[in-house]
Order: sequence, then structure tokens, then C-alpha cells
Amino acid sequence: MAKAKFVLFGDSITQQSFLPAGGWGAALADRYARKADIILRGLSGYNSRWALFLLDRIFPTAALNPPVLVTVFFGANDAALPDRKSKAQHVPLSEYKENLQRIVSHLKGLSPSTRVVLITPPPIDVRGRQAYARYLRRATYGDSAEELPERTNEAAGEYAQACKAAAKEAEVPIIDLYSIFQQNPNWQELYLCDGLHLTAEGNTVVFEELVKILNSIGLAEENLPLDFPLYSDVDPLDPEKICRP
Amino acid sequence: MAKAKFVLFGDSITQQSFLPAGGWGAALADRYARKADIILRGLSGYNSRWALFLLDRIFPTAALNPPVLVTVFFGANDAALPDRKSKAQHVPLSEYKENLQRIVSHLKGLSPSTRVVLITPPPIDVRGRQAYARYLRRATYGDSAEELPERTNEAAGEYAQACKAAAKEAEVPIIDLYSIFQQNPNWQELYLCDGLHLTAEGNTVVFEELVKILNSIGLAEENLPLDFPLYSDVDPLDPEKICRP
Repeated sequence: MAKAKFVLFGDSITQQSFLPAGGWGAALADRYARKADIILRGLSGYNSRWALFLLDRIFPTAALNPPVLVTVFFGANDAALPDRKSKAQHVPLSEYKENLQRIVSHLKGLSPSTRVVLITPPPIDVRGRQAYARYLRRATYGDSAEELPERTNEAAGEYAQACKAAAKEAEVPIIDLYSIFQQNPNWQELYLCDGLHLTAEGNTVVFEELVKILNSIGLAEENLPLDFPLYSDVDPLDPEKICRP
Repeated sequence: MAKAKFVLFGDSITQQSFLPAGGWGAALADRYARKADIILRGLSGYNSRWALFLLDRIFPTAALNPPVLVTVFFGANDAALPDRKSKAQHVPLSEYKENLQRIVSHLKGLSPSTRVVLITPPPIDVRGRQAYARYLRRATYGDSAEELPERTNEAAGEYAQACKAAAKEAEVPIIDLYSIFQQNPNWQELYLCDGLHLTAEGNTVVFEELVKILNSIGLAEENLPLDFPLYSDVDPLDPEKICRP
């Protein structure tokens, strides 16, 4: 059962990547069916500091079947403002960058063939975020009082920059989701469902950008071996051949 | 990284279970995020005879982390008629039943906690199947000559019955997809996209029926442990606690 293993490591945007409406993780599992196992390690609400604590548990060194690919997608929670409601999730900018570097270094040490892809946090649509918070408060408390935003697009941008710098220094590819989303003038509604998490279209962008990178680092789907022969290649006179490696 | 493992073992209907439009495998991965890894072992075109050859490769005995759940979903290809175009995939009815029993017996032997769920082949809509074949021939050869159907609903029904008998004898739960789909008078268009494979609605039925069974055999999502604490339970004064088992 040892098959190439792709691990998706990140926060809620990773945890939700198998949502029915076209999640990027599910799309990857579909594309790489019979070629790689897609293992979900998304931890809603987590930041790079907590991720670091879990590295040895999730990615033990000297494991039998180390991952061929790990996507690292933290920052949306690190960038929560330190003086607002989500402050427990905040991680200072310089520590965030250092944490990413330590995560990448650990992952690269798993095996010479382990490839790492960083993903920046998405941009933040404060108005979408507030509308969602209002909706939640109304639904939960019958109350719609405004609160100060716990995230801003400017802060997310600084963390995206730090993520890019970490990728450059560690020489690993990166999906600059922060910039890519904002190239579309309707990014707020098109790619984000609540000002932070991704719509089906946002998921599609992550999937397509990831496929581009996989194609460029020797992990193109068409170049990976099938687990077993195509059914049309099974020899009807000696079908048992399929189980001989 | 040892987490409960659910393996989806079957033919193309399993292989395609992560398709973007609401695949049942993806829905399961979403529902059980942070609780179980959903491992895809769908082999398009395979029948129960070929599945049997692969058992030791896919499910070695004495593996370190045996699956907690295996879904076994073969029969659609076994039921291909022996005198038509797909005859290489055909498996006689009695052998099909015996193969299922041997598969279940092997899987139950993996560990005392490994649970097996059988799924019958879906019903066949011959008209939908022929329309699809016509479409393919036109697209590929510019030719729309009719061919005799390679599958019938009657044959699928016999294999579904054999699957039910195997489940009963082995005392494992079963999703009788063949009957469940046909309870809806529009099953042909509602649940099947080409007379055989599943639409989004068909995928939803498989997912919902599987969840019902999981709830009844001690694998309800809400009863499985989370991998790591919820972010809201992380102690800000001692976050490193999350990595201590």
C-alpha cells in the first residue's frame, strides 16, 4: 500500500479543502487517483507556531514512507491582529517567517525527494468578514452590534510578503495567493465566501496553481506511475500478473 | 501520523469518488477531517476476480496501521455480459459471490477492529448507457452505429442479490444501492450520468447511506477523537501542550 504521499498541511483553508463544492484537496485527490494518496492535515484556527509544535508528530523523521509533497499553508491566523478578538492566534511577523523556515527545513529533511510548496495567506475582505460576523451574531445572539475587524488586508499582505521571502530563502516554490486573487477586480466575492475562506472558484485557483507547480517540479500527474495496470491492459489469459510488482 | 484509516476499495465508481461535483469519497474525507484518513483504492474497470489478486498488495496482513473501515464496491464490471464487448471484465455470478466472501474474510482478518461495508452495483440504465456509447462513437469515430448493450439491469440485479447474500453470510453491513436508487422513479437521470456511473445526487446517496452505517457500527464522526485540540482549546500560556499525546 506504499504509494506516493502528498500531505496538505495548513489551517482551516486546508481543512476545508474537501468541501463538496470543488475543494482543492478533493480535486487533487481526483487528479492523482491511483498515483498518490492525498493526506489531509488541515487544522482549523492553527498558526505557524502551533504547527511547529506538531511537526515531529505529523512528520516524524525516519518514517517508512515519507511524503513526496507537502503543501504548507499557514498565515491567515498568524496575521490576526494582536489587539482584537482573535489575538490568541496572532504570531508576530518575524516569528511567522522563522517558523515557516523551520517547518520547511524539517520537511526537506524527511527525504531527499520530499518537495515542499508554500502558499501565502489569501487577501482579506474586511467588509465580507464583517458581514459574516454580523450574520453569525444575529443567528446566534439576535445581536448585530459591530466589532472591530480581527483581520485586515494590509496585515495579510505583510504575512504574504514574509511567506514569499521565506520561500525564496529556502528555495521552494510558492503560490502567492494573496497577489493572484487580487489580480481579479471582483476577488472579494469571486474567491472568498466570508472575507477569508475560499469559494469554489477560489479553491479552483489554488488547485490550478498547485498543478502548475507540480508540473514544474517533476510531479506531473501523467509522469507518475499507476498503482496497477489499466483494466484494458489486464491479460485475460493471465490476469494474476497484475499483482506481481 | 497514525490516524484511523478508511479505505475505499472498488472499481471506477470508487475511483471517481473524489470528482469535483460532490463525490462520495470527498464528502467522507470532509466529514471525517482530523478524525480519519480516507484512502482511495478505486480501480476503474476492475472486477472482483482482479481485486482478489491484489488483496495482499493493497491490504497486507500484519500492517502497522490496519484500516478501521473498508468499503468494498465491486460488481458493475463482473456483471458485464459474457458475450458482448466488455466480456473480458465478466465474472460468473457464483464466482463473484465467492470472491466477495474471500475479500471480506481477508479484510476482517487484518485486525479485530477492521469493519467492512459492502456496496452492491448500481442499477443499469441501458438507454442511458447506449446514448453515452453513441456520443462517444460520434465524438471518436464520427460513427453512430448501434451496438448491443454490454450490461443490462437484470444482470446487475442478479449481482446485487449475490452481493446481498455474501453480506448476509459474512455478517457485514451492506448498501443495497441497486434497490435504493430504483426507489426513485427518475433514478435513471437523477442518479446515473451515463447509465452506470453516478451523478452528484447519486454520490450523495452513497455518502448518506454510508454515514448511516458508520453511525450504526461505532464509527460515527462525532465519536471519533480529534487528532489535536480545537484551536479554541489551545492554552495560550502553554500552547506546546498540544503536541503531548
